[in-house]
Amino acid sequence: MNNFELYNPTKLCFGKGQIAQLNTLVPENAKVLVLFGGGSIKRNGTLDEVTAALGDRKVSFFEGIEANPSYETMLRAVTQVKDENIDFLLAVGGGSVIDGTKFVAAAAKFDSEPWDILLKMGANVSAALPFGTVLTLPATGSEMNSGSVITKKAENAKLFFGSVFVYPQFSILDPTKTYSLPEKQIANGVVDAFVHTIEQYLTYPVNAAVQDRFAEGLLLTLIEQGPRALIEKENYDVRANIMFSATMALNGLIGVGVPQDWSTHMIGHELTALFGIDHAQTLAIVLPSVLREKEAQKHEKLVQYAERVWNIIDGDNATKTAQAIAKTEEFFHTMGIKTKLSDYGLSESDIANIIKQLEAHERTALGEHQDIDLATSARILRNSL
Amino acid sequence: MNNFELYNPTKLCFGKGQIAQLNTLVPENAKVLVLFGGGSIKRNGTLDEVTAALGDRKVSFFEGIEANPSYETMLRAVTQVKDENIDFLLAVGGGSVIDGTKFVAAAAKFDSEPWDILLKMGANVSAALPFGTVLTLPATGSEMNSGSVITKKAENAKLFFGSVFVYPQFSILDPTKTYSLPEKQIANGVVDAFVHTIEQYLTYPVNAAVQDRFAEGLLLTLIEQGPRALIEKENYDVRANIMFSATMALNGLIGVGVPQDWSTHMIGHELTALFGIDHAQTLAIVLPSVLREKEAQKHEKLVQYAERVWNIIDGDNATKTAQAIAKTEEFFHTMGIKTKLSDYGLSESDIANIIKQLEAHERTALGEHQDIDLATSARILRNSL
Repeated sequence: MNNFELYNPTKLCFGKGQIAQLNTLVPENAKVLVLFGGGSIKRNGTLDEVTAALGDRKVSFFEGIEANPSYETMLRAVTQVKDENIDFLLAVGGGSVIDGTKFVAAAAKFDSEPWDILLKMGANVSAALPFGTVLTLPATGSEMNSGSVITKKAENAKLFFGSVFVYPQFSILDPTKTYSLPEKQIANGVVDAFVHTIEQYLTYPVNAAVQDRFAEGLLLTLIEQGPRALIEKENYDVRANIMFSATMALNGLIGVGVPQDWSTHMIGHELTALFGIDHAQTLAIVLPSVLREKEAQKHEKLVQYAERVWNIIDGDNATKTAQAIAKTEEFFHTMGIKTKLSDYGLSESDIANIIKQLEAHERTALGEHQDIDLATSARILRNSL
Repeated sequence: MNNFELYNPTKLCFGKGQIAQLNTLVPENAKVLVLFGGGSIKRNGTLDEVTAALGDRKVSFFEGIEANPSYETMLRAVTQVKDENIDFLLAVGGGSVIDGTKFVAAAAKFDSEPWDILLKMGANVSAALPFGTVLTLPATGSEMNSGSVITKKAENAKLFFGSVFVYPQFSILDPTKTYSLPEKQIANGVVDAFVHTIEQYLTYPVNAAVQDRFAEGLLLTLIEQGPRALIEKENYDVRANIMFSATMALNGLIGVGVPQDWSTHMIGHELTALFGIDHAQTLAIVLPSVLREKEAQKHEKLVQYAERVWNIIDGDNATKTAQAIAKTEEFFHTMGIKTKLSDYGLSESDIANIIKQLEAHERTALGEHQDIDLATSARILRNSL
């Protein structure tokens, strides 16, 4: 096991009716900016519930954070924060709203050009406005971590930043708030959480027994509960298990002390930035091809994955790993997500463009061995056609 | 799944050489009191390493915290803290030293009679001195939780208190520091962590898929790594996996949103207080008998435990649960820990005395259904003879 630090000060308030807790969680004299996406939280009553729980506090609103929150949009929120002397942010939504809010929190206390935060990946952040979240879409884990991904539309660039100053103070997770989500968003969330887990697990063994078992536990849960969530839309426990899995998949826990391979996310980000393919769809396209490309390097963990997660006991190891990758693809299909570039209208002729973007963003040495260069990425993409 | 709150602000610094981090973790101008048990950390060099890492800070020492830390001893430490204007505590040792330090931290900022902290189980604690820990014995999980158990020798009473103010600010876990532990202490630690996990897991199902999988992951790890730790005394990964398991077994994570049954600990505490039997030994005595007594109520989870943890697939459910309980006992034996009261020189005639103590400490409604009354506890003890 590698040395590690584990620290996560976010308080999770999980369960039915937890939004009422806002009244104790948000400071009494706070000037609150509530940030959200579109109209769904207005239509389903969540925004009213949040506003009611905030009581007599001075509350403003910032609406219109898009999927893949843009730098351009979030800068407008920073201006509002400064103009109105806001001192507490409350994100109400999914990972995009929370990621955007993290950027606002950091940028509001940042003296120079905010774009530098993304260029330096947050290393230059030394303070942030305090904020909490009300999660309505289980997927990204942003509600309990210190990372954020922001898109600069002008440059087709999806960039990451992280800082210990942008852990949410609290996150409210009420599984009933996910009942009204469209099927596609639930499916995307399950696949996103699944791939987050795989990226911290399917590398090479370092005898990290607990991290492996925890990762396998999340994968087993998502495989079991994911398809049920598409059918039993108001099954509380199914939604609760998915919501808790997605948080645990990317709150730092399963990734401590182990090698990680974020190549699927890195390549996927370019597909979203260039072609607008949903984040989770890009992961479902790229992951199986990454696993096949790197079968030799990932062999030991792939066998373990086959046996412990997919219960593939018979056959030689090569058969087991091939079956496990096929099962992974099947699982994405069961969730209604297609796994080929051609399913999204892309062809061989698009690959050069994707590779150009990877090069522009210096993603030329991906994977746990930093050996996924541009030629390898091209092969991975070609094998996903 | 039940509603829950999950919050844990302790920073874990895990791995080889982490003690050097004390120089950045402890405030620069702190007046530090280092609390520890006996001479082992002097003999093996850990105390020197800690002192060196603390650099030029003003450091005092409090030596002599016993296993099952006593109220009487810890009050002397409180006096030293006040006399020397100590403003930071550093526990170096196992669960007893850390539990004792938590009590000192709370009592040093407590205005009335410190015994009240234990009588009110910490509900009256509103501040505490900041403190960190250097863990040398994996077992209790105290290094990453907010609970403490203190013994008042005068009354043969082991009492618990908990408070959000007594989370360690940081805990340093260096698995190499466990190499020199006597076999018995490693065995006790593994059994303690195992039983902590069982007590948050073997109750009745509430469809908490993640918590179940995490608990099963810890049990599988302890079963696999525990016996190896007795033989491969300097296998870093084995020690690391046990150390991380013990922390995860009682840092709040696996217990959120699920029913819990602490009857084994409650009955076990009386055995330690009356007869001086090691804490883990008392758990190994009591747990199998609790599981047999409550087989009907725990049936569903026992079947799941049999299948997922012990891989018992054949036979009817009653056979599975009986085998799983037998396997649990066998595991304790493999760790070198005996599981009968008679193994420790106790007989039928001692039971009345134990029951009297349970009554005196108001432990008359134990278990996840609060239906383990004194008569049931007596039966559990009789079946452990």
